[in-house]
Amino acid sequence: MIKILVTGGTIDKQYNPLNGELIFSKTSVEEMLAQSRNTVETELEVLMLKDSLEMQDQDREMLSMACNKSQETKIVITHGTDTMVESAQEIAAHLATDKTVVLLGAMVPYQFKQSDALFNLGCAISAVQILKPGVYVTMNGQVFDHKEVVKNRAIGEFVART
Amino acid sequence: MIKILVTGGTIDKQYNPLNGELIFSKTSVEEMLAQSRNTVETELEVLMLKDSLEMQDQDREMLSMACNKSQETKIVITHGTDTMVESAQEIAAHLATDKTVVLLGAMVPYQFKQSDALFNLGCAISAVQILKPGVYVTMNGQVFDHKEVVKNRAIGEFVART
Amino acid sequence: MIKILVTGGTIDKQYNPLNGELIFSKTSVEEMLAQSRNTVETELEVLMLKDSLEMQDQDREMLSMACNKSQETKIVITHGTDTMVESAQEIAAHLATDKTVVLLGAMVPYQFKQSDALFNLGCAISAVQILKPGVYVTMNGQVFDHKEVVKNRAIGEFVART
Amino acid sequence: MIKILVTGGTIDKQYNPLNGELIFSKTSVEEMLAQSRNTVETELEVLMLKDSLEMQDQDREMLSMACNKSQETKIVITHGTDTMVESAQEIAAHLATDKTVVLLGAMVPYQFKQSDALFNLGCAISAVQILKPGVYVTMNGQVFDHKEVVKNRAIGEFVART
Repeated sequence: MIKILVTGGTIDKQYNPLNGELIFSKTSVEEMLAQSRNTVETELEVLMLKDSLEMQDQDREMLSMACNKSQETKIVITHGTDTMVESAQEIAAHLATDKTVVLLGAMVPYQFKQSDALFNLGCAISAVQILKPGVYVTMNGQVFDHKEVVKNRAIGEFVART
Repeated sequence: MIKILVTGGTIDKQYNPLNGELIFSKTSVEEMLAQSRNTVETELEVLMLKDSLEMQDQDREMLSMACNKSQETKIVITHGTDTMVESAQEIAAHLATDKTVVLLGAMVPYQFKQSDALFNLGCAISAVQILKPGVYVTMNGQVFDHKEVVKNRAIGEFVART
Repeated sequence: MIKILVTGGTIDKQYNPLNGELIFSKTSVEEMLAQSRNTVETELEVLMLKDSLEMQDQDREMLSMACNKSQETKIVITHGTDTMVESAQEIAAHLATDKTVVLLGAMVPYQFKQSDALFNLGCAISAVQILKPGVYVTMNGQVFDHKEVVKNRAIGEFVART
Repeated sequence: MIKILVTGGTIDKQYNPLNGELIFSKTSVEEMLAQSRNTVETELEVLMLKDSLEMQDQDREMLSMACNKSQETKIVITHGTDTMVESAQEIAAHLATDKTVVLLGAMVPYQFKQSDALFNLGCAISAVQILKPGVYVTMNGQVFDHKEVVKNRAIGEFVART
C-alpha cells in the first residue's frame, strides 16, 4: 500500500476557460492512476492544492506531519517543482526512520498533451517500492537523494547539487 | 547511462489510416523520452518491431545476446506484453551477473490519448537505476522479479505468480 | 436543432487492451460535442456501430429511412469512410426535398492523439446549418456534393469525382 | 484557395515550463491543418500573436487591411475570443463586397488535451467555402453574422445578440 499525498503544483494545474488562467480546481492524480492502469494499492490524500512558491512554513510542517502520521511506510508526494527540494529537506529533518518518501511534480501540467506528469508519476511509484528509507526526488528520469538535488530554474531541470 | 532495447509490442503500435490497421512503422520511444523531459543518458537500439506473439526463439536469443553484449549494465527493454515474461526468463537464463534488466510494455499504444506507455516507461527508467542485478518486469505500477510474475490475459494485468 | 445519426466507422473505433484490436463499444460523439463546447441543440441517435465495409443494403435503407423519419431538417451522419459515398447516394435517392444531410467520418479514430475527428465534425456541424437541401460529404476540409465526390483509397483522401 | 490570417488568441497559447505561464511563441495552425488532414489549399499569414484584450486600434486596422489586400476572396482568421466581435465589425466596415471572412478562436488552447480548437477550425474552414460574402464568427458550433453575435463572458460562450 502506497500513501499518495497531493499538495498541488504544476502537475495539477487546470485551464480556466473563463479567464484564461491556470488554476487549481481538483487533483487529477486519480485520473492519472487510472490511465496508468496502476494496480498497486494506493490511498490518496489531498493536503492542499498550492503553487509551491506560495507554500509557507506551516504548509511544509503540515506535509511533514502527514508523512509521520501516515500508517503506510511508502509515501509518494505530488508537489510544485520550485520548492520541492525545500519540502524534501523539511520532511527529512523529521521523518521516522522506517519510511520511504518520494516527491515528484511536472514541468508541464497533466492536462497538456505534452505533459511529463505520467512519466514522473511512474518513476516515483516504482522507486518508492524499491528504495531504502529516506527522502527522494524523481524528476527528469533521475532518482535523487534529497540532499543531492537542486532545481536549475534557468533550464527547468533537476540536477545533482554541486 | 541506460541502454534501451526496442523490440516492438503494443507500446509502439501506430495507426495506418489507409487500411485501418495497427502496424509498426518506427519506434516512438525517442518521442516518449522527449515528452518525459528525461535527462538520464540513454542509448537506444531498435532490435526489431514485432508483436510479441510473433516472436520466435531466435528473436529471444537475439534479445538475450543484445543484453549480454551491451556495455551498459543498466538495460531497459520495451516489449509486447503477451510474451514479456518468456523473454525475461530467456534473458535471465543467460545474463551476466552484474546487469540489471527491466522490461516494460503498454496495454494501450503510446499513440492513443489514454495510453499507459509513459507511466510504464517511468517505472522502468527509475527502477533500473535502483534495483540490484537481475531481470524484472514493471507493469501496472508494480515491480516484479521475472520469476514471480505472470500476465493474466483475462483481465489484461500483470500479477504475482501463484 | 440538428439530428445526429451515428453509424460507426473509424471515427468511433476504440482500443480493446485485452486483444489489441480496434472495436466498437459505444459512440464517442457526445464526448466530442462536449470537448467542442458545442451549443447548437442536437439530438443523437445511434443507428448502428459498424465498419462501413460491413454495411449491407438493409443498413443503408435503415439509414435512409432514419433521415426521412427525422423531424429535423438538418441531419449530420457519422459514418465509415470506405462506403460513405454509397450511403450518401442511397440517402439522396430517397430524401425529402427540404432536408440537408451532411456525412462525415475520420481517417484516424477520435481516441488517437492525432485524430481528424473533431475537425471533420466541426466542418459538418457548420455546413449543415448553411447548405441548401441536399446530401453532402465533409472530409479533408472540403464540402462535396454527394454526386461529385469519391474516396481515393490509395491516398486515403476524398477527392472530386473526375 | 483560402487565406488564413493568424492573430494569436487562446487557440495559439503555449505553455512555458520555465515560468509556468501561457505565452505565444509560434502559431500551431499548420500543425492543426496537418492533424485535420486538410486538403483545401491554404495560404497562412501570421499578422501578430496577441491576446485579443491587448489588440489596439492599429492592430485591427492592420487586420482589416490584410483582408482587403488578400487576393483570395475566402479568408479565415484565428483570433482571441474577447474582442473577436470588435475585430469582425472593424473588418466589416471596410470589406470589399466580394469577400467572405470567418473568424474563429478557442476557449481552450490547442496544446491542451481538451481543446475545442480543431472543431472550431473545421467550422470555419467549411463555412468560409459556403457562406455568401460578409463577415462571420464560428464558435460553439454556431455560425453567426458579425452583427448578430456577442461573447457572453460570464459563461464563456458566443450567443446571439439580443
